[in-house]
This record gives sequence, C-alpha cells and structure tokens, in this order.
Amino acid sequence: MDQIIKKAEVLIESLPYIKQFNGKTFVIKYGGSVLNNDKIKKSVIEDIILLKYVGVNPVIVHGGGPAISKTMEAYEKESCFVKGLRVTDAETMKIVEMVLVGKVNKEIISLINQMGARGVGISGKDGSLIQASRLCPENIGEDLGFVGQVDQVNPEIVHQIIAGGYIPAIAPVGGNDQGETFNINADTVAGQLAISLESEKLIFLTDVDGIRSNKEEADSRVSSLSISRARKWIQEGKIKGGMVPKVKACIEAVQSKVQRTHIINGLVSHALLLEIFTDQGIGTMIVED
Amino acid sequence: MDQIIKKAEVLIESLPYIKQFNGKTFVIKYGGSVLNNDKIKKSVIEDIILLKYVGVNPVIVHGGGPAISKTMEAYEKESCFVKGLRVTDAETMKIVEMVLVGKVNKEIISLINQMGARGVGISGKDGSLIQASRLCPENIGEDLGFVGQVDQVNPEIVHQIIAGGYIPAIAPVGGNDQGETFNINADTVAGQLAISLESEKLIFLTDVDGIRSNKEEADSRVSSLSISRARKWIQEGKIKGGMVPKVKACIEAVQSKVQRTHIINGLVSHALLLEIFTDQGIGTMIVED
Amino acid sequence: MDQIIKKAEVLIESLPYIKQFNGKTFVIKYGGSVLNNDKIKKSVIEDIILLKYVGVNPVIVHGGGPAISKTMEAYEKESCFVKGLRVTDAETMKIVEMVLVGKVNKEIISLINQMGARGVGISGKDGSLIQASRLCPENIGEDLGFVGQVDQVNPEIVHQIIAGGYIPAIAPVGGNDQGETFNINADTVAGQLAISLESEKLIFLTDVDGIRSNKEEADSRVSSLSISRARKWIQEGKIKGGMVPKVKACIEAVQSKVQRTHIINGLVSHALLLEIFTDQGIGTMIVED
Amino acid sequence: MDQIIKKAEVLIESLPYIKQFNGKTFVIKYGGSVLNNDKIKKSVIEDIILLKYVGVNPVIVHGGGPAISKTMEAYEKESCFVKGLRVTDAETMKIVEMVLVGKVNKEIISLINQMGARGVGISGKDGSLIQASRLCPENIGEDLGFVGQVDQVNPEIVHQIIAGGYIPAIAPVGGNDQGETFNINADTVAGQLAISLESEKLIFLTDVDGIRSNKEEADSRVSSLSISRARKWIQEGKIKGGMVPKVKACIEAVQSKVQRTHIINGLVSHALLLEIFTDQGIGTMIVED
Amino acid sequence: MDQIIKKAEVLIESLPYIKQFNGKTFVIKYGGSVLNNDKIKKSVIEDIILLKYVGVNPVIVHGGGPAISKTMEAYEKESCFVKGLRVTDAETMKIVEMVLVGKVNKEIISLINQMGARGVGISGKDGSLIQASRLCPENIGEDLGFVGQVDQVNPEIVHQIIAGGYIPAIAPVGGNDQGETFNINADTVAGQLAISLESEKLIFLTDVDGIRSNKEEADSRVSSLSISRARKWIQEGKIKGGMVPKVKACIEAVQSKVQRTHIINGLVSHALLLEIFTDQGIGTMIVED
Amino acid sequence: MDQIIKKAEVLIESLPYIKQFNGKTFVIKYGGSVLNNDKIKKSVIEDIILLKYVGVNPVIVHGGGPAISKTMEAYEKESCFVKGLRVTDAETMKIVEMVLVGKVNKEIISLINQMGARGVGISGKDGSLIQASRLCPENIGEDLGFVGQVDQVNPEIVHQIIAGGYIPAIAPVGGNDQGETFNINADTVAGQLAISLESEKLIFLTDVDGIRSNKEEADSRVSSLSISRARKWIQEGKIKGGMVPKVKACIEAVQSKVQRTHIINGLVSHALLLEIFTDQGIGTMIVED
Repeated sequence: MDQIIKKAEVLIESLPYIKQFNGKTFVIKYGGSVLNNDKIKKSVIEDIILLKYVGVNPVIVHGGGPAISKTMEAYEKESCFVKGLRVTDAETMKIVEMVLVGKVNKEIISLINQMGARGVGISGKDGSLIQASRLCPENIGEDLGFVGQVDQVNPEIVHQIIAGGYIPAIAPVGGNDQGETFNINADTVAGQLAISLESEKLIFLTDVDGIRSNKEEADSRVSSLSISRARKWIQEGKIKGGMVPKVKACIEAVQSKVQRTHIINGLVSHALLLEIFTDQGIGTMIVED
Repeated sequence: MDQIIKKAEVLIESLPYIKQFNGKTFVIKYGGSVLNNDKIKKSVIEDIILLKYVGVNPVIVHGGGPAISKTMEAYEKESCFVKGLRVTDAETMKIVEMVLVGKVNKEIISLINQMGARGVGISGKDGSLIQASRLCPENIGEDLGFVGQVDQVNPEIVHQIIAGGYIPAIAPVGGNDQGETFNINADTVAGQLAISLESEKLIFLTDVDGIRSNKEEADSRVSSLSISRARKWIQEGKIKGGMVPKVKACIEAVQSKVQRTHIINGLVSHALLLEIFTDQGIGTMIVED
Repeated sequence: MDQIIKKAEVLIESLPYIKQFNGKTFVIKYGGSVLNNDKIKKSVIEDIILLKYVGVNPVIVHGGGPAISKTMEAYEKESCFVKGLRVTDAETMKIVEMVLVGKVNKEIISLINQMGARGVGISGKDGSLIQASRLCPENIGEDLGFVGQVDQVNPEIVHQIIAGGYIPAIAPVGGNDQGETFNINADTVAGQLAISLESEKLIFLTDVDGIRSNKEEADSRVSSLSISRARKWIQEGKIKGGMVPKVKACIEAVQSKVQRTHIINGLVSHALLLEIFTDQGIGTMIVED
Repeated sequence: MDQIIKKAEVLIESLPYIKQFNGKTFVIKYGGSVLNNDKIKKSVIEDIILLKYVGVNPVIVHGGGPAISKTMEAYEKESCFVKGLRVTDAETMKIVEMVLVGKVNKEIISLINQMGARGVGISGKDGSLIQASRLCPENIGEDLGFVGQVDQVNPEIVHQIIAGGYIPAIAPVGGNDQGETFNINADTVAGQLAISLESEKLIFLTDVDGIRSNKEEADSRVSSLSISRARKWIQEGKIKGGMVPKVKACIEAVQSKVQRTHIINGLVSHALLLEIFTDQGIGTMIVED
Repeated sequence: MDQIIKKAEVLIESLPYIKQFNGKTFVIKYGGSVLNNDKIKKSVIEDIILLKYVGVNPVIVHGGGPAISKTMEAYEKESCFVKGLRVTDAETMKIVEMVLVGKVNKEIISLINQMGARGVGISGKDGSLIQASRLCPENIGEDLGFVGQVDQVNPEIVHQIIAGGYIPAIAPVGGNDQGETFNINADTVAGQLAISLESEKLIFLTDVDGIRSNKEEADSRVSSLSISRARKWIQEGKIKGGMVPKVKACIEAVQSKVQRTHIINGLVSHALLLEIFTDQGIGTMIVED
Repeated sequence: MDQIIKKAEVLIESLPYIKQFNGKTFVIKYGGSVLNNDKIKKSVIEDIILLKYVGVNPVIVHGGGPAISKTMEAYEKESCFVKGLRVTDAETMKIVEMVLVGKVNKEIISLINQMGARGVGISGKDGSLIQASRLCPENIGEDLGFVGQVDQVNPEIVHQIIAGGYIPAIAPVGGNDQGETFNINADTVAGQLAISLESEKLIFLTDVDGIRSNKEEADSRVSSLSISRARKWIQEGKIKGGMVPKVKACIEAVQSKVQRTHIINGLVSHALLLEIFTDQGIGTMIVED
C-alpha cells in the first residue's frame, strides 16, 4: 500500500511540468543509436505516447544511417562519405528514400500503433512539407549529388496530423518542384521543423550524455551552453562530427522562438521523461547568451 | 539517477489508465471528512488537477455538514436531524445555502486557483442546474421543511464550464420556478449529475475503506458489490447511515450508463489516483449483477 | 382597443434604442438600497431580463453591505469602518464572502430563474475573474486587513456565461495565487469589469436621483458632468461618501472605451428602462470633457 | 415622469411574449390592402423590424394585384380573372414578374433599409426557392396559362438570408427546370414557406377584422376557428373569395407543425404587435380540432 | 476514339488555368449586346456555370438599356440621354428598376436554374449592397434626376450568396438611407464591386473585339493597354462613348488590387472561356504602367 | 480562332459530368502496367489532378509487383507465388513494405507535386487505416506468411488528407495491434477503401480493354457485366488470374453503396477522363443484376 502511495506521489510531482507543457509542441529527433536498440526504441515511443496523452504534441523526426548502409550492402553499393555527408548519386537516393520512408519510418509507426496510440508517418515530400534544393556546401570540392538543404517548410500537413489526434513521424527526405528528391540531414530537418511549428522544445536523443567541456572527462558535461560559447567550441573543434549539425540546429532554433533545445542521451531509460519532467534534466541545453 | 528513472517508470505505468480515461467525465463527491483535514483537502485537489491535465474532466460535488452545524451555532440555532436529514426551516435554508455556496464551495475554488488550475464554483440554482422540489420521504411523519429532491438536471452550464477549461465545483442546493431553494443530499446530487453528464465514473470519497461484509472485521472489505447484494445489505441494515444514499446513488448510476462507481477512503493519501491509476484499487465498487 | 394600440406605439418608440444597443454589454451595479426593497428588487430584475431579450448583454455586479452587517451581528462581531471601508480581518472576510456569494448573489439568481430567464452567479474567484491584492490606501494610517484592489480581470468566464444565454451576476470578492480572498468595493469591481468587457454602458443604481450641483436643492441635479468637473467636485467635497468610488469608476471607464456611464436612482420604478429607452434619461451621466 | 414610467410598464408587459417567441420564425403575408396605404405600409415594416430586434425571424411574403393591374393598363392589356385567378399568358407573366419582383418587392426593401434594418428581396426563382408547375385547377374549363402551383420549397436561401441578419421578402413567383416562370397565389406561397421553414406563426394581414360567423354582423367575428369548421364554412360558401386560399393555407399549415395561424386586419395600426404581444389578439386563429 | 482522346487533351490543356483561378472571384459584366442574342445569352451562362464548377466564384453584373427603352415606349415615355446618361425622373426610375430587377435579372436567374446551377439575383438595394447618392457630373448643365453614383459597397450579402453555392447576379440599382433609389451605370457598379470583393478579374463582355489603336483598322486591336495610355486615349477621344466608363472602371480596379481587367467581345462563342483558359486571350487588357 | 472555339466547346461538353461528380470520391487503383510506362504514369496523374480541380476527390491506391520483384533480386531472394499470391516471409515483407511505401508511393507523390498539386502518401499502417490479419485462403495447402486480409478500415486519416486539399495515395500494406505488417492485394484494398469512403466510383486501371465475352475476340468486350454473370464467369474460368480480385472487389463494392465500378485500360491516353467525361466509356462496368 505504501508503495502505491509513493507511485501516486511521483505522479503528483510531475504535475507542474504537465501544466507547463500543456498544448505545446515538442520536436524530438532520434537516429541510429536509439533505433538499433530494441528495448530503448520501444521505451522512447512509450515516453512519446505519454507526452501525447498529457497534452503535449510530440513530433518525431528520425534518421536511419545504419539501416541505409546495410541496404547499400545488399545492393552491393559502397557507402561513401565526405565530411560526414553521404555522397548520394541517383541510385543511392532511391535506396535512402526507400529505407527511411518505407522501413525506418514504418517501424516507428508500427510501434506507436502497437502501443495503443495512432501514428502517421510521412516524408518531407508529402504535402510538400520540406521544399529542398541541392546543398552547396562551402569548402567541399566534390559533388555530393542529391544531398539537399531545406529551402522552405510547409507545416500544414503536420498541423493536420496533430489536429487529428495522431503522432506524426517525419522522414528527412525533401523534394522540389521538378520532382527531384533530396537526402537531408535529419538534425537540420528537426531544427527547421521546430522553428516552423513554433515548437516549445527541440530535443535531440543521441548516444552521449550531452556536451562535455573536456571530452576526456565524463563528469565535465555542461548542463547548459550559451550560443556564443557553442559557436566558439565548434570553431575550436571541441564540438565536432555528428554533434555539429545538432548544435547548429539548436542555435538557429533558439534564435527563432523555440523556447528550449536539449541534447540528451537517448540510451538512458526514459531519458525524454527525465529531461522533461524533472528539474535537474540530464543532458545539455543550448541557451541564449 | 536510478531514483529518477524509477519515477519515470511510474509515469509510464500510468499510461494505460490515462489512455483509457482520456476525454471522460468523473463526478467526484466529498464532504466533511475530507474538508476537515487541511492536508487531505489540498491533496485531493492536487489529484483532481492532475486528472484534468491528463485529459479527464473531473466534476466536484461537495457536502459541508460540519461547517453548516458550526454556523448554526453562531446563529444560536440548534441542528436537528430526522433519519439523517437536517430539518430545514426557512432560516436554516438560508444558513445552509450561505455556508455551502459562500464558504465551502469558495474554499475549494481558492485551493484550485492556488494550485495553478482554474475552478468555477456554482450551486444547483445557477443556470437552473438542479431543478428541485420538496422531498416527500416515505415513512417520515414529520415536515422536514426545505429538504429537496432532484426533479431535473440541466447540465448545459457544467458542460460550458468544462469546455472553458475550468474545473466545476457544485454545491448541493437546488431551486424551483417559484424561487424557492432546497437543501439536497450531496450524494444524491452527485449521482444525478453523473447520470446527466453520462460520466465514466462516480466516486465517493468517504472516511472508511469501503464496504465491509462484516462491520467488525477491518479486513472484510469487499472490493466489488453487486447491485442486488447491495440492495439486500441495505434492507438488512448491514449498510446504514450516511452510506445508504451513497450506495443508492451508485446503484442508480450503474443502471443509467455510468461505467464505474467507487466508494473509497478519502483520508488515504492520493486515494483518487490509487483507485484510478492502478489495477488493484482500494475501495468498493458497486457493479451490475 | 385604442389602449392596446397605444401600447404598441410605446413598443415602437423603443425601437431606435433597441437597435442601438443590440449585441452590446451593459454592466449594472446595485447594492443595499435596491436589495432592501422587495418590490424594486424584482422590478430591477424584470428590467434586466427585458434587456437580455431585446439583444443587450446585461452583467450584474452587486454589493451587500447591510446584509453583511446583519450577519456580523449574528456572529457578535462589530462592523468597523475607516473612511467608508470595512475593516476586514480574516474572520470578517469569511463572513463577507459567505454573505455576498452564498446569500445576496443567490437571491438574485433565484429571482432571475423565478422570472423565466437563467442566471449564473459567480464571485471574482471563479475562473480567476478578479485577481486582487491587499489595498494600500494612501493616507490611511490603519491596516484594513483583507480589503482588496483589482489587479487584473480575466473576463473569459463572463463571456462564456453570456454566450450560454445566461445572465451573469458577480459578487465583489477577489482572490490571489496564494489562495487569499479579498473584499473589494463593488463599485470598483463594476468599473473594472465594464472596462475589461468593453461595455457599452456602466450603470450605477443608487438611492439618489443623480448628482446635484447644490446638495440642498432637489432640482439642481445635473444630467451630465464632465470628467474634469467631476474631479473638482470630488476634491471640493461636493461629491463625497459612497458616491466617490462610483464617480471615480465612471471617470476611469469613460477614459477606457466604455461609451456611457450613468448614476441613477434605482428606487424609481423601471429606472433602468427609463434611462436606456428614452432620450431624456433620469440620472447623471459622467462624460468626457 | 409618471408617463415615462407607464411606458416602461408597457415594455415589461411585452416581456412574456418576447421570451416565448425568441428565435422563432414568423411568416407574414400581406398584399394590396396594406401596400396601398402609405402610412400602414410603413407601420407594418416598423412592426416587423421590432420583431427582428426582439429576436423573432420575420419572413415577408407579399402580393401585389393592384400594382399588376395598373401596369397591365399601361401595356393596354386587359386583366382577366377566372374564379379569382388572373389568366396569365406569356406576356402577362412577364408583367406580373416585373411588377412583383422589380417594383413591389423593392419598395418593401427600400422601406426596411430606410428604417434602419437590412432587407433582402428575392423571388421564388432565386436559389430555386419555389419549384413550381402549371396549376391544374379542378373544375376550371379554361387554360389559365402560367398560373402555377408549388411543387417543392428549397428554403436554404431563406435560412441564409436570416442567418446574415437580414429580413427576407419573397415575391410569389416560381420557376421550373425548363426555365418557365409561374404566377402563384401569394397566400399559397406563404403557407408552403411557413411549413418548409417550420415557422412558429403564419400571419395574414388582410383588410377585414377576421372571419365572421355571420357576414352581416360586425361583432360576429370568431377569435378562433377549428379546422373542421373552417372546411365546412368554405364548403357552405360562408368563407369565400380571397379568404379561401388564406384559410386553406392556414389549415394545411396547422396540420404541418406550424404552431399558430392568424388572419388579422392589417389596416389597424400595429395590428402585428397587437396580435403577437397581447393575450387578446384581434383577428381569427385557425386551430386544430 | 482518337477524337475522344483529343477532347481529353483539351481538358488537360485547361488544367493550368483551372489551378490558377481556383477559389478566385471574377466579376463579369454584360449588357444589351449579349442579352439581345438568345444563343449567346445561353452560351455565356454556360461558360459562367463551368467557371463555378471548376472552382471560380463568378459574380454577374448586368445592364439592360434596350429592355428599359422598350418598356419606356409601352409607357409612352420618351427615353432621353445627356452625354450617354439616361435622364431619370421619378417615374422613369420606377420603370428602370422594374425592368432591371424584375425582368432582365430574373431572365438570367431562369437561365442559370434551367442549366443546372442555382442563381440568386439581387439589386444593389438588397442587403444595402450599393449605397448610392445623386450623381453630380462635372460639366453637365442639366439635372439628370435619379442617376446615381456609388458611395459605398457592403459586399456581405454577395459573400453569403457565394458561400451558399449560388451564382449571384446583380442589377445596377442603388439606394440611400432616405429610401431613394438610383439608376447607376452598370460598368461602374461592376468595377466597384470587383474592388470591394477583391476580385481576381473584372471582365466586360461588349460587342467589339477590344480596343483598337486605329478605330478604322480591324486588326489594330491592342491586346494590352497601360493605364497612362488608356487615360491619354480617353482624353484624345480615341476611346469614347460606352467604352469610356468600362475603361475607367478597369483603371480604378487595376489600381485597387484587382489582378486582371479584360474588355472582350461577348458575341464570340465562349469568349469568356477563351479569354480565361488560353494564353492568347481575345480582347484587350488594361494593365498597370 | 475557330480551333480555340472548338476547345471551349469541349470544355462545355464536359460540364454535365463535372456537375454530376462534384464533391464525390473516386477510388482509383493502378499497378505495374501503368507504373512501368513513364508517359502513361504522368498522364494518369495529370488526369487525377484535373479531377481534383473540377471538384472530385480522387484517392489513389497503387500496387507495385514488378518493383518488388526487382528489389528481391537485388537481395538475391527468389519471388515465389502460390495461386497468384506472393509467398511473404518476414524478410520479404520488409522488402515489400520498403518498395511499396518508400519507392512506388513516393514516386507518385513526386509526380503530383511536380505537376502543381499536393499529394500525401501513406500506407495502411498510418492512422491504423487498414487493420489486417493473416490471410487464411481456402484450399491453399501452404503457409503464405505475411499475406494479409482487410479486417477493418479506419478512414479518418484519408478524410483528413482530402479535407486538407491534398490527393491521398495509399500503399497496400496493413498492420495489426501486435505490430505485425501484412502484404495485401492492392485490388482488395482499393475495394474496401471505396466501400469505407462511400465512394461514387471504384476504377481499376489495367492493361486490357475491359472484360471480353470471348477471350480470343478483341471486339467482344462487354461494356457492362451484371454481378451474377460476373460470378458465373469467374467460376467458369472465363475471368481468371489478376482480373479475379478486381472483379470480386467490384462486386462487393457495388453491393455496398459504391455507385459505379469500372475496369479500364490504363494504357489508353487519358483513359480516366474518357471513362468519366464521356457517355460512351471505354472499359467494362460491373453492375447490379
């Protein structure tokens, strides 16, 4: 009996957070590290459904690099990266889209349905959600093919899916008016979507505990990082690799009315709830100066 | 950290219940035993606000016997009961209304506001919610005065208050077209309101753990009681006193599309959440045969 | 027959006024003088219901000083005033609220229901309508206790009650986020509500015929008084006592988009209709310079 | 002053009627006798506007026989009647439509606009309101040409005009799918429209005081007449001429959920208000047996 | 079979235009030249109904000079013009209104109904659509009587008719608050209505192929004409007569957010569709400099 | 010029059909034969967009057998069929879903976007649109794996997509509450969806001209086939192979309020428009006896 009462107390502790986030939109991005772990994958969806039922509007953006690479192998095509970006010829683009939209996205929808909510999975081409164009990266001497950048977000279809009571899951693929399809960094898509939806929060579920001031020291994680310091750390190479687009998306989001941006470790059980429903939080927030 | 994760797990455990009760109406009645205990009073409101935020529509019906009796003393009027019903002359009626509507009801609203939600407290006369008439109790040889019975419920005003995002709290006073005011048993009002609102649940917060098969044995509480057995126990006097109108209200409610009726001990911390968010439950349910 | 035709002509004469006020909100404040006279009390409600049916949205704000004082006596507490304000200790506050909300307000609702319309009576705590704080009167050397001032009006609940087809009646009690309750001057509440509801009219029903230029001469009533003159007369003491908060409320209202403010004699039969449906009018209007 | 108070009392006397008819639709038919009298014409519109403002939805159906006959003369065509019906060849039909829709109807709209409300005048062809076909009168050996009967009423356009806050005025002309136009008895149109709009009242403004039991005796007017008696009187010829279609329309309306049907003298000042806002009434009601 | 496929191809060719004009409003004005030709009259309505069904909101404004003159003859009144404007005494005004509203307008509605759509015909007096006043033409030494100019357009009634799924047809008659009626140039009404409705297009169907740079040369039609050149041509008399108010209406419309203005030959079969659904177009467009 | 007028006439000829189908839903199913032909693929989309713009609500259901087989090869898996059904083990199911949802569906969306409309492509798992279970085919001795049958259609998500102005495209994959995914015959999905959406039409675009009474004779195509004859022909083997599920879907649809079912040759240019916008039609309709 006492144990049950303790449970009730936990529920009551969450009340201030539930009140605060009622009716707000959260864009939640996760990729390979979460998707490759069956238990975590399920637990993340469970957290997201809980958010939905306590009045938050969660919007999922997913990556899928490992699944793509694996399918490339089936096709006997080599995965080839330049500065972290997958070189995407026409055939690769078809594989990328097939895997992200037809496999990863649909596994997420299956999980949502299985756990008693209703999900609707679309790509950035549906409803012309993500209008994209060929990325022209500075300082890259090579043609990356169908790697794209976000030109415009038409969020109506996402608003409709939310209004219908569904949880939307977005695959990071965009299109243009000529019928071309582009492979876009999922972190970037998440950031742009958060801005366009006027999200309360933009949350990246990664496989590290946040950002460290000293990469070697596990306990040097900073719980919040100002934009200017974040920029400096990117320049200095202190923040690097896959963390760079996440931090950049956070910076842009913070500057465009997204209230909070979080980079957290998705491998921790119920990391989403911890970050959202407790004062401490567990990862790193990018904040205004 | 482990402790925080455990908290998240508790939240997740509540998910199936939250899903089940989403958008449903609960009529919750409580009276003196809860109202006289400052800590419990606050905790009950907290539970009700949590229900509101996870998508339930709680409707409070309150009693207030002790507060009435106390005010009667200030007026140097004696409280006089026949078969558990307060003999209510015109002056007493005014005191009853003043205390229930102007004191007890408003204390509840203050608590709701103070804890970050918004409440609206009305009596059964507002919006002609409870159309009442003089009670003609069988087998009572005396005139009880302005003790009333419910003739009709016009629930529109309650629906409006709910739709506005407020928590309604109802004082058990009714009126008629001649401008007369009646003192009505709060249990009866709760039951009739639950039926009229097509409630999912009707919950009585009392000061006992439920109904016992043997009054003397604390562990003889029955977790569910069929209508026919409930009727028999009333007849046999096994159920008696203030419990009778509660059980009668439950019986009528169960027969009129209210899904579940609960009689629980409001003095247990977070009793409402325990009953609602766990499978065990803690009180007695009245169920169809 | 001729007599009947004359009646029809009276109806037709009222047409221009009905057209003019269609869909507009009137805040009507009245207190002891009206409430103590059974015939007048009924007649005022009748006028208000007529207004409702011809398309006006009447909002009642009531006082209740005499009823409070009487109940204070029952409690053997002395009523004590400083500069016209009731010194309100915690116990007094409870009595004030009980009487205003549970007695005076509900008598008004009973009358409305009895005469075929539907009223909903709330206090300023319901729906957090009147957010209040402790009044810090200049130049008063004493602690007045729970005498409050209006900090903010959240008019949504009143709009909802109106939209539901009900006549709202407001008791002049406010609250704050700490759960405290305040006794607020009803004239001030009426004025602030009129501003917040963007009322067409703010009408005070008093027991005098309006404002006189010479207090001793009955026929020196001024039918309109400019803001600057009104301020001067207050300073000079020509306007004093209970008339001061009324005139101050009018001044503030006129400066905040309330079209018309009237101070009239509520004891004259159908004073509300006379003032509203004829060109002459019977009281004093406070007007812009 | 006393006189003003008496006026207010008249307003208050009308309250029960205003309450009763709030939100209800009245179909009001009038023709030559009202239209030929400038003072009465204006007064009728005034009454109708008053009805609109006190919450009734008045719908005007008008005739226009005298105006048609006068225009026929300008065209040097003879007006020719068989059993009270105007023989309507193709050219006559054009004149009838031109006069009813372009002259009589628009004069009514001008009056409504002039008196501060907004009217919208249409014919039965607009929005295919009145689908008509050639009348095949029993026992008439002659071809009446484009005299029509009502086959179907599509009331959507009238509902829309009402919802827009306008007073609709309908000219009794109908059409069919072949583009033909028909001259229909205005009394019949009024009756059919009342049924289709589920009107509360159907009111005929005529030039007599109602129906008399003895045509010669002015004071033999019956204030109500049962359907079966009305039918008998028609058969016996006691009711005859232009009164027949009115009474027939009333009978059919009463049998089809129209609550009240009135035949009154439109030449009496404010006859509409007298009939509606007093208990006595002035004409004859056709009522169920 | 090949022929059928060619038909399908024509439909497909029209797709870009249908997409472009979806949900847009077109004001289409036509008068005597179209109305006098039975085949063309029908064909124009057919085109308008097609527009309605492919998602355009067509609004018809019609003239009716020849029909008026003919009726004037029946009344043995002489038609008298000053600078192209019909001198309109009170009696003439009645004839003008009767013919435009009761005859020309209703013929259009009959045609629309007959061809399977639903039309609603009103005049500028209905719903106070066109508030007008006496025209004070510069440099005209004579009193033109009830010739009016547009003071204000209240387009709500037209929006309502469109929203109801009907095609509105407007007779160019206006009114004022004194109940006076005015005869207004239909071209002017069309232009003002197009501005008030924020039309996409304003189209004049005339009996010439557009505007010629050299009146004598049939092939000197200009397909577009700038505002400044149009003004110059009016001043030089190159544009004259009935074409002047059309061009002036176009100029004002172009300067007030109407996207396109067209003057085309309504006698060419399906001229409306040609102008709208092909790139070439057939008449003259007035365009910004 | 004459040529342009002829074009306009074609548009006008289509008007009766446009009127008839305005606001109606058409379910259009096509598969490999259309998808493998670039020119036809584009032309079909063009026809569908035209339908959308003239007021029809087209819903696309697509197959994709050849694309699946091709991808199977890349994975070095053999395609294996029993009685026309693809044996679908867990790995094959993943490939099927990946290809249908991530490739075929998205190519259709790209085409729609490219041609100026907006499409939204989902699978039967999104919004739990198609609830499915393992198919238990009679008389098949083998386990077909994840071949599914439709248990329930939840059409809300499709209604929402249509209401948003988008063209929905559905991949024939369903799910169940255990998170399993099923490969369902696209013809069956189309039929069930048509029933659930209360479609006006169900149209199968195939690679033959319809159904022939004598398979060998090209000109023995029947333009309509009664349900009972269709059943007989299936039993007799006259209708066989891939045509069987199409005809069965038509039969069930006709019996469930779908007005018209068509089996037509999608390789004919604009076959959809021919069938819809001309009286002749080109394929075979299944009709009630």
